[in-house]
Amino acid sequence: MGWGDLGVFGEPSKETPNLDRMASEGMLFPNFYAANPLCSPSRAALLTGRLPIRNGFYTTNAHARNAYTPQEIVGGIPDSELLLPKLLKEAGYLNKIIGKWHLGHRPQFHPLKHGFDEWFGSPNCHFGPYDNKAVPNIPVYRDWEMIGRYYEDFKIDRKTGESNLTQIYLQEALDFISRQQVRQQPFFLYWAIDATHAPVYASRGFLGTSQRGLYGDAVREIDDSVGKILKSLQKLNISENTLVFFTSDNGAALISAPNQGGSNGTFLCGKQTTFEGGMREPAFAWWPGHISAGQVSHQLGSVMDLFSTSLSLAGLQPPGDRQIDGIDLLPVILQGKLIDRPIFYYRGNEMMAVRVSLYKAHYWTWSNSWEQFSQGIDFCPGQNVSRVTTHTQEEHTKLPLLFHLGRDPGERYPISFASDEYQAVMERISPVVEQHKETLVPGEPQLNVCDKAIMNWAPPGCEKLGKCLEPPESNPQKCFWPH
Amino acid sequence: MGWGDLGVFGEPSKETPNLDRMASEGMLFPNFYAANPLCSPSRAALLTGRLPIRNGFYTTNAHARNAYTPQEIVGGIPDSELLLPKLLKEAGYLNKIIGKWHLGHRPQFHPLKHGFDEWFGSPNCHFGPYDNKAVPNIPVYRDWEMIGRYYEDFKIDRKTGESNLTQIYLQEALDFISRQQVRQQPFFLYWAIDATHAPVYASRGFLGTSQRGLYGDAVREIDDSVGKILKSLQKLNISENTLVFFTSDNGAALISAPNQGGSNGTFLCGKQTTFEGGMREPAFAWWPGHISAGQVSHQLGSVMDLFSTSLSLAGLQPPGDRQIDGIDLLPVILQGKLIDRPIFYYRGNEMMAVRVSLYKAHYWTWSNSWEQFSQGIDFCPGQNVSRVTTHTQEEHTKLPLLFHLGRDPGERYPISFASDEYQAVMERISPVVEQHKETLVPGEPQLNVCDKAIMNWAPPGCEKLGKCLEPPESNPQKCFWPH
Repeated sequence: MGWGDLGVFGEPSKETPNLDRMASEGMLFPNFYAANPLCSPSRAALLTGRLPIRNGFYTTNAHARNAYTPQEIVGGIPDSELLLPKLLKEAGYLNKIIGKWHLGHRPQFHPLKHGFDEWFGSPNCHFGPYDNKAVPNIPVYRDWEMIGRYYEDFKIDRKTGESNLTQIYLQEALDFISRQQVRQQPFFLYWAIDATHAPVYASRGFLGTSQRGLYGDAVREIDDSVGKILKSLQKLNISENTLVFFTSDNGAALISAPNQGGSNGTFLCGKQTTFEGGMREPAFAWWPGHISAGQVSHQLGSVMDLFSTSLSLAGLQPPGDRQIDGIDLLPVILQGKLIDRPIFYYRGNEMMAVRVSLYKAHYWTWSNSWEQFSQGIDFCPGQNVSRVTTHTQEEHTKLPLLFHLGRDPGERYPISFASDEYQAVMERISPVVEQHKETLVPGEPQLNVCDKAIMNWAPPGCEKLGKCLEPPESNPQKCFWPH
Repeated sequence: MGWGDLGVFGEPSKETPNLDRMASEGMLFPNFYAANPLCSPSRAALLTGRLPIRNGFYTTNAHARNAYTPQEIVGGIPDSELLLPKLLKEAGYLNKIIGKWHLGHRPQFHPLKHGFDEWFGSPNCHFGPYDNKAVPNIPVYRDWEMIGRYYEDFKIDRKTGESNLTQIYLQEALDFISRQQVRQQPFFLYWAIDATHAPVYASRGFLGTSQRGLYGDAVREIDDSVGKILKSLQKLNISENTLVFFTSDNGAALISAPNQGGSNGTFLCGKQTTFEGGMREPAFAWWPGHISAGQVSHQLGSVMDLFSTSLSLAGLQPPGDRQIDGIDLLPVILQGKLIDRPIFYYRGNEMMAVRVSLYKAHYWTWSNSWEQFSQGIDFCPGQNVSRVTTHTQEEHTKLPLLFHLGRDPGERYPISFASDEYQAVMERISPVVEQHKETLVPGEPQLNVCDKAIMNWAPPGCEKLGKCLEPPESNPQKCFWPH
């Protein structure tokens, strides 16, 4: 989902009344970022509080390539990583993930092995339908066992876009919250829904209801679901005891636009890129009785902050034996403080850009390759900024491309290298980057090796359903990441 | 000012709390348009309720050229046009214009000759400073007499951007409203301020306060002023008797970006163009006790509707002897109705595009000429959409370029000519355009002739100030309009 997909962030059709109200009742973060312009690494960073370059959710197979966890990926979240739910257990929290896991689909990477107590959802996106011969359809789990597969037991009609997956995920959330309220046990719910990912779907009641087409229908269904979750918290009288944070894992995918892609508003390009459209996210915190209504914070935030903030809320310390990139946002949320911190924009193994206050310096720029572009793949359709959007990887490490995101949120007007402003600002930014690079210890890259044999041929539970498939022979290979 | 300049329309720095609150307390119009992508024609249309092609605010000197009323223009608002204040007089309204008139600067075009009872402001923008030899500085009037000139008596420091003009205009408004409340006489106030026009300025208290630079400072000052005007209406207990409407006369000028230009949010290009960025405007109606809070109307609106709506509010009928393009928005504002109507996008003498419901068909496209573009003049910086933004005038009258503004507000994805959607939609749009063109009686073009002799050399009042200048000999010429 993109920054520009919500009414409160300027979507012209203004079709997100529940999310807009949630934002207006809490604190809006217009400067909040995904940890990566792609799903898996960003989600891994959310749960570990660490940049993908540290937690292993990147590749070294080629320079500055985006990688994620498709079904054939061998790697996943390493055991050495400490995930948020695992830590929250220490404070007595019960943890549930509903929706897309995306941190590795093999048994050792199972969410219940990494701190979650319950899971309803899938290890991957709902790409497909596959033929169950060359590629199996994606399983949907309840806790340890597969209970069906997308397109088979969990229907998605690719022709009409009809599917009630979001409704199922909503019901799972409402049930879980209600059970926890009865149990009087603190809980962490990671409602990691699959919509609005392409191929886009919505349930029958939302199909055709948006001015924006099927993608807008999906956004409306999410909006409606969040509204129902908040209402449930209030009805159960636990809203004043529950911090709710809404955000996304990457910018809208413009490659799917306009029919299946969203909006990044005024920002440049989309998912897969390290321009603002790829990583700036809708974000707001809601906590009646603690966060007063109508606040806007210009804190530079990141999904990784949800790790540190959640620990802080639970009275826990982040692990002291490793670098944590997330910061505790509680002083921001509760006292309106502003914490000075940079935002790093990575693409795979390369730090592409950095933001310090209102300035952003690009050390590398790349939209996508000429080869892909000539095949019609475009992450910046209709947005060709001379010397900024490029189809070759452009290095600017000696003289970074500098933008002022206040005057120029769309990254269209590089600040002149010869200006005093450029000199002064780069004197502030350069030491931040140097310090980051000098002290960085990259994690073991998890997204380098692929093997069709380790796909979801026969997940636990498949016997009961008669849905076990025969895997091919193992043939591990370097994964190919085109972007 | 552009659609994307306000927080409520998605400006990332969210610096317009008063305007955002005004919008949230009333009815938001995300589909509201200027009558032209340029100031004078749009303002002429606002006050006449008629398209510039009808009221004469266009040129036939060249095809599809934007024209306005600089100091050397011979024409202006024709006597045959009936302006809103003139009509409102019949219902006992006292009418004041504060700020930029822009409908002709020669004596016969004076606002007090066209229905206004009071005027404080200038006939033109504050371009300059001029040398008072080749070009005189722009006068500022109080009613019939010049009381000084920009840059001389009304200071604008082009180096620092400091000027208290908006503060003067604010005080004039507050004084007028307060006087009218004492008089118990209904009033029409046209607060037609000069900011945020380039060269941009703000008063000392606002300089350097925005995340967006000087332009943002100017936006913040407008926001603050509108907040004070609304507060004054409430303090005087007349807010429930006063409809306040906020909008602008054209999109943000991207040619001045980023330092002096604003934001058109997700929309394509800016001022001077008939893409959405040139004509879609921030707009909302505020009327406590009559308009309930939090409403959003997707009515296709136009500044011309303010003419018909104001007449309706005063219990008057629009003139029946001429074509009026504005519609009465009262059923929309008070009863939430939606009125089917097209929006026509003109550039000078050419209908460039038309919007019908969510579809927009371009019959002509043009950004600006290659000649100007090569000189660095760019109305679409960083936004080159193949076959859409062009530097030659492109005719599409046989096969218009069609966009769905819901799925694609940025006009980046033309709908395939071969699609069923294209066929079906053009069957709806074509008769609307045919009917418009067949019945159109263009007005006498007012913006064809320029003459340096008729500049503001010696306006009434200049003697008292010792500021009368010697005009050159009359030498009427065809005006040259480059865009």
